[in-house]
Amino acid sequence: MNFEHSQKTQDYISRVKAFMREHVEPVEGLIYREMQEMNPDGNWRNWKLHPLLTEFKQQAKSEGLWNLFLPDAELGKGLTTLEYAPLAEEMGRMLFAPEIFNCNAPDTGNMEVLYHFGNEQQKQQWLTPLLAGEIRSVFGMTEPDVASSDATNMQATIEEDGDHVVVNGKKWWSTGLGHPNAKFTIFMGLSNPGNDRHNRHAMVIVPLDSEGLEIKRMLTAYGDYDAPYGHGEMHLSNVRVPKENLIMGMGKGFAIAQGRLGPGRIHHCMRTIGLAEKALELAIHRGLQREAFGKPIIKLGGNGERIAQARIAIDQARLLTLNAAWKIDNVGVKAAMTEISAIKVAVPRMAQDVVDMAIQIHGGAGMCEDFPLAHFAAGVRALRLADGPDEVHMGMVTRLEMKKYMSR
Amino acid sequence: MNFEHSQKTQDYISRVKAFMREHVEPVEGLIYREMQEMNPDGNWRNWKLHPLLTEFKQQAKSEGLWNLFLPDAELGKGLTTLEYAPLAEEMGRMLFAPEIFNCNAPDTGNMEVLYHFGNEQQKQQWLTPLLAGEIRSVFGMTEPDVASSDATNMQATIEEDGDHVVVNGKKWWSTGLGHPNAKFTIFMGLSNPGNDRHNRHAMVIVPLDSEGLEIKRMLTAYGDYDAPYGHGEMHLSNVRVPKENLIMGMGKGFAIAQGRLGPGRIHHCMRTIGLAEKALELAIHRGLQREAFGKPIIKLGGNGERIAQARIAIDQARLLTLNAAWKIDNVGVKAAMTEISAIKVAVPRMAQDVVDMAIQIHGGAGMCEDFPLAHFAAGVRALRLADGPDEVHMGMVTRLEMKKYMSR
Amino acid sequence: MNFEHSQKTQDYISRVKAFMREHVEPVEGLIYREMQEMNPDGNWRNWKLHPLLTEFKQQAKSEGLWNLFLPDAELGKGLTTLEYAPLAEEMGRMLFAPEIFNCNAPDTGNMEVLYHFGNEQQKQQWLTPLLAGEIRSVFGMTEPDVASSDATNMQATIEEDGDHVVVNGKKWWSTGLGHPNAKFTIFMGLSNPGNDRHNRHAMVIVPLDSEGLEIKRMLTAYGDYDAPYGHGEMHLSNVRVPKENLIMGMGKGFAIAQGRLGPGRIHHCMRTIGLAEKALELAIHRGLQREAFGKPIIKLGGNGERIAQARIAIDQARLLTLNAAWKIDNVGVKAAMTEISAIKVAVPRMAQDVVDMAIQIHGGAGMCEDFPLAHFAAGVRALRLADGPDEVHMGMVTRLEMKKYMSR
Amino acid sequence: MNFEHSQKTQDYISRVKAFMREHVEPVEGLIYREMQEMNPDGNWRNWKLHPLLTEFKQQAKSEGLWNLFLPDAELGKGLTTLEYAPLAEEMGRMLFAPEIFNCNAPDTGNMEVLYHFGNEQQKQQWLTPLLAGEIRSVFGMTEPDVASSDATNMQATIEEDGDHVVVNGKKWWSTGLGHPNAKFTIFMGLSNPGNDRHNRHAMVIVPLDSEGLEIKRMLTAYGDYDAPYGHGEMHLSNVRVPKENLIMGMGKGFAIAQGRLGPGRIHHCMRTIGLAEKALELAIHRGLQREAFGKPIIKLGGNGERIAQARIAIDQARLLTLNAAWKIDNVGVKAAMTEISAIKVAVPRMAQDVVDMAIQIHGGAGMCEDFPLAHFAAGVRALRLADGPDEVHMGMVTRLEMKKYMSR
Repeated sequence: MNFEHSQKTQDYISRVKAFMREHVEPVEGLIYREMQEMNPDGNWRNWKLHPLLTEFKQQAKSEGLWNLFLPDAELGKGLTTLEYAPLAEEMGRMLFAPEIFNCNAPDTGNMEVLYHFGNEQQKQQWLTPLLAGEIRSVFGMTEPDVASSDATNMQATIEEDGDHVVVNGKKWWSTGLGHPNAKFTIFMGLSNPGNDRHNRHAMVIVPLDSEGLEIKRMLTAYGDYDAPYGHGEMHLSNVRVPKENLIMGMGKGFAIAQGRLGPGRIHHCMRTIGLAEKALELAIHRGLQREAFGKPIIKLGGNGERIAQARIAIDQARLLTLNAAWKIDNVGVKAAMTEISAIKVAVPRMAQDVVDMAIQIHGGAGMCEDFPLAHFAAGVRALRLADGPDEVHMGMVTRLEMKKYMSR
Repeated sequence: MNFEHSQKTQDYISRVKAFMREHVEPVEGLIYREMQEMNPDGNWRNWKLHPLLTEFKQQAKSEGLWNLFLPDAELGKGLTTLEYAPLAEEMGRMLFAPEIFNCNAPDTGNMEVLYHFGNEQQKQQWLTPLLAGEIRSVFGMTEPDVASSDATNMQATIEEDGDHVVVNGKKWWSTGLGHPNAKFTIFMGLSNPGNDRHNRHAMVIVPLDSEGLEIKRMLTAYGDYDAPYGHGEMHLSNVRVPKENLIMGMGKGFAIAQGRLGPGRIHHCMRTIGLAEKALELAIHRGLQREAFGKPIIKLGGNGERIAQARIAIDQARLLTLNAAWKIDNVGVKAAMTEISAIKVAVPRMAQDVVDMAIQIHGGAGMCEDFPLAHFAAGVRALRLADGPDEVHMGMVTRLEMKKYMSR
Repeated sequence: MNFEHSQKTQDYISRVKAFMREHVEPVEGLIYREMQEMNPDGNWRNWKLHPLLTEFKQQAKSEGLWNLFLPDAELGKGLTTLEYAPLAEEMGRMLFAPEIFNCNAPDTGNMEVLYHFGNEQQKQQWLTPLLAGEIRSVFGMTEPDVASSDATNMQATIEEDGDHVVVNGKKWWSTGLGHPNAKFTIFMGLSNPGNDRHNRHAMVIVPLDSEGLEIKRMLTAYGDYDAPYGHGEMHLSNVRVPKENLIMGMGKGFAIAQGRLGPGRIHHCMRTIGLAEKALELAIHRGLQREAFGKPIIKLGGNGERIAQARIAIDQARLLTLNAAWKIDNVGVKAAMTEISAIKVAVPRMAQDVVDMAIQIHGGAGMCEDFPLAHFAAGVRALRLADGPDEVHMGMVTRLEMKKYMSR
Repeated sequence: MNFEHSQKTQDYISRVKAFMREHVEPVEGLIYREMQEMNPDGNWRNWKLHPLLTEFKQQAKSEGLWNLFLPDAELGKGLTTLEYAPLAEEMGRMLFAPEIFNCNAPDTGNMEVLYHFGNEQQKQQWLTPLLAGEIRSVFGMTEPDVASSDATNMQATIEEDGDHVVVNGKKWWSTGLGHPNAKFTIFMGLSNPGNDRHNRHAMVIVPLDSEGLEIKRMLTAYGDYDAPYGHGEMHLSNVRVPKENLIMGMGKGFAIAQGRLGPGRIHHCMRTIGLAEKALELAIHRGLQREAFGKPIIKLGGNGERIAQARIAIDQARLLTLNAAWKIDNVGVKAAMTEISAIKVAVPRMAQDVVDMAIQIHGGAGMCEDFPLAHFAAGVRALRLADGPDEVHMGMVTRLEMKKYMSR
């Protein structure tokens, strides 16, 4: 366990921090507000990315702060999972910051999939523009009609038909589906029902303008459309795409999903830790600023203790995540399953508590659009369900613990 | 402590339940959905009440299920706080149900104020149409620029000027300000700065169309506008109203606020208990319905225990609230201060936990508009701040506990 | 739900309070200390009841404060479960107080069993001296070698052999087994293995001096022998007792256990609430008395909030228990299963938290014998296991909740 | 942050583990049981160290597994705080194991004090036999009559009188005072009342057989004497010791205390983590072994989730502690104050929860002497008070957090 930041990492941390401080922070409040005004409701067809974000993307790209998540030294910056982790934390401090650096979900995960498992044609057609930040993408996994925390429940199908595959099924909570630049989804479905459960599914690239693909609506998460990204519901009815769109082939979906798993979890968690740090910072600021009963409110009752508990909880969560990142890099995803599941359970809960505390200290202001805290609350709450509910991941940790003793 | 429902109460419970079951429940989902569609964004000037609600109001009024909250036997139904409590619980199961019975906040509180403290002219002009359900009203207390949990921080002013009073100040989280029928606000401000802290404030009736009163915006609570009610911010700049609009006179604000306190707290808490029951009901339904890993999800991991804990927590909260109601009726608000503060602390927290659990069992569906749970989450979270943050009320309980031993 | 104390109850409350205040409280510390000195270790054969307790027993008996738990108007005082509840709370404030009034577990439960289900000879031989406070008794249920939360695991056997029954098996956590006056145990065992699970067990009276009955040891609960009561382990090997010692007959054990269940649960919980009140009282006293950093420690950090939370939690627990008592009296144990299970879960946890808080405020003094708090901690912790672990009772609540929806 | 175990550390870990596995684990239960039998009550004058421990001490010394805590390469093994940390964790798995390796509190802290701040004569007379494991020692800090979490409350005094100092005062919770080999205490008292608060106290070596030093009693922590170590109360009345016994001189007590602080905190916390690991191990074992309702109890209800939560909590606590150790080694105690306070808050609470869970899974067996869990519970509970209550350390974290923003 060596979490020491390499010189390279330290350099990137300074540069990302400087970029945020100089360019983004001065307009943080403005962007939050105008994004809301630009995208006032659920009519995603009208959703727009804030022009400043488009501008910042260019700038970040030109400064070399681009695709930092990708381990490849040419296409990305050659950073390990552990090296990238503190950069994800920095970006997590604002909900819209990750896209500035082309490091937002689910595009990062999709780029990783195409990078590791895509064929040349797929890379050229879809990975290249994603890496350039020109298009956005979607990942279709969760389904509305079944408890999809159990993958064997999945109802969507991918069937071969000559040179094509035929895709059917409903997906929801497909993040990014409302983005004005979204062009395709990676879609997971049952391809080989007769195989064992690890070789039964496939992933296929489906352009969003395919015939038979209908975007039904954008979902709210606690009233939040998360525009202009959005979490959408799409129904695919006999959508035909060329067989070349299959990633790795029929029955390979599970293997790809496993490969996508580890680093993505780290990214999510580190961003969440950045978000919690920002919430704590806001709480201390507000607590020092506002007075009641003759004192700054941070000194009233249990408020001070709650600040301390937040600091301790954030630090523990960060160390747990860095440790998971280190294990992914050094012993691989398979040997790090306890750690990867553990952070999925621990980090969003920690953040939910910290954000809730920050809101309480802000009073009414914390709930409304004057601060990003209510958005934070929606975001971190959703993380306790996204990518499988906490309970499923606790189950994984339990099984691995029991195994230690049963094999004895 | 006798919480036995009187025959009269039992009769009203059956009638309210029957009304809900026959008329409202069949269109519950429809109303939630269409209310959202009718009022898609923050442009409150366009907000509309769902026509079915207007219809239900007529029906409830004609069936005598109207103004049940008001202890007066003629204007209301002569129910005590304790007798009304279970009716409030029934209404709390849907966010829009209280208005159907003319029992929604803040109109109930405002009607009580006018009933107890208003003069004849005020009653005629404002109380009568409120009781008829023809107009709605607002209560202006919380301020954006100070920690208003400490009443001595209040910056709004009410000054005499000949036959008028001049009102200045900013208020926010003024519930109902966006309602299409909202006509006036009761506004609290500093009137007699030289007096002791219990005789320093006044309350005055200010029509919303007064010159100098500007509605700046509706606030979101966790992204939720709570349309068509809304929580608004209003700025009053040299608003002149006739002196007759003062309730009880200069310096009487605190006394009125105290009078408004107890029963309103019971109403809020009982509605919240109804909401929690509804959330638990939804959780059990979903948990029995959806399957994963070969079982209904209610039987997986700790889900069953969470159901039990919710049941236990709700029952404790209800008994605590009924006990507070009983004390208000039997020994008065002053002698029930521990109880009235205790429910303010305990009930919203309980509901926050129960709703969060219900959402978790629903998975993604729980967060989105397919269920009212995310609205519930926003509502109960707001209750931990509305009417003073939890911490202020814990402080009251602590002081009263210490007093028992110090006076010995 | 009518928890109003009857005039009779109020009278008894005053008298028990007066008795405690005048006689017992002045020597409370002395008795705790000397009981510890008299019974310094686990050699239960030397254990002695403090002579003051013997004296107080006489006094309480002569004042008519005796057998208050027993609903029978002649043998007891004709109090309902609800009427007795506040008296149990008063007695719960000191660990040794219940015996003063002949109201201590497990004798109360055993007296109830003999009263309701015993034959004339059993009543004469065992119930009469118990009611007189001359002897003490034991209840043998839990077993060391199996998870006895599942009654079907029970290994002890009761077999007919002519005019006798032959009893075999091990029991532990048999409370009162170390008491100098303990004379017999009610012993539960498998009697009719072929019957359905509700008619498979029997209960039999076994004198402690029976041949083949060996008391192996007294167990510590968190280092506490709870002398001179004790929680013992006894092994029975071919113990023969006359058939007349069977209570109600072979196969009737479950029915008797059910009958014993409800009121005993109320007694335990109300005593626990009294204990929690005492702990809170001690915490506030200490918090007001000791100073640090220039303030009474009750005013430091979150201490005040913790006092408030304890008050709120105790009040909720009491109301929940009174409600369960009321239901037992008015609709019967069967219809009150949710309530009876709920208090078993909620009350000991509440008390565990309150006592832990009180200890923390006392600092080191709270952990040692200068205050009864560490004994309280051991006692309430044990209650989360005694009479079945929390989890089993949560399971009962869950099943009953689910049933509401499945039967629809 | 580099927590990688050095080759040297890994070697020591294997050797300590092997020693424990081969020598100590086979007699673990025996020693716990016989220690209890040898030291049945509070008569500390009769307390004995188990002879096997004396034997193991010789063996560990001869194998070079001795004084591992001491950074000095000759007197100890030259291990840094971080390098020693995992060894402390191993030792923490049994309550009596640390002394085997001469690494038990408070001797480790006292040895560090003498090593860093003692003069030659003090080292020769007291440090040498401590390092040899021949004598034991005591630290006198906490006082019975004041809230000693606030050092300015300290009432004990150390006054110069010619060639002597005169020591007066009461101390309690002086760990190790009952040990048969205990020979002296380091005693802290007010020496220079006129100085500023950081230069007001002194530490002096007081032999336990000094005239005027009376050991009043051993205290129980939750009924546990922790024999043969003991936590004692001693009263010093005009005890005279030569001036040479002053450590560093009058007014230097605070500086010494600060120096003693950091590494000792790491030791405590790592031992506590070892204890929590042992508790979790026992819980899983028991949970797999015992069956109820047709399943191993680990699979019932929320038990599995609790196992997962314990794993996650322990791992977070360990990382937090290793990080604090690393900071102490690399940036010094002063710059690590947040971390050193954070582990004091987080680790004992974590362990309290894990041990409580383990006991619950064990049922009655968990509370009694058949498992070390009740001793564990007492030990970890005491840690929330020892060395200052949690609340004081949260206060430190809060102040340091606020400082970040106030200095801006």
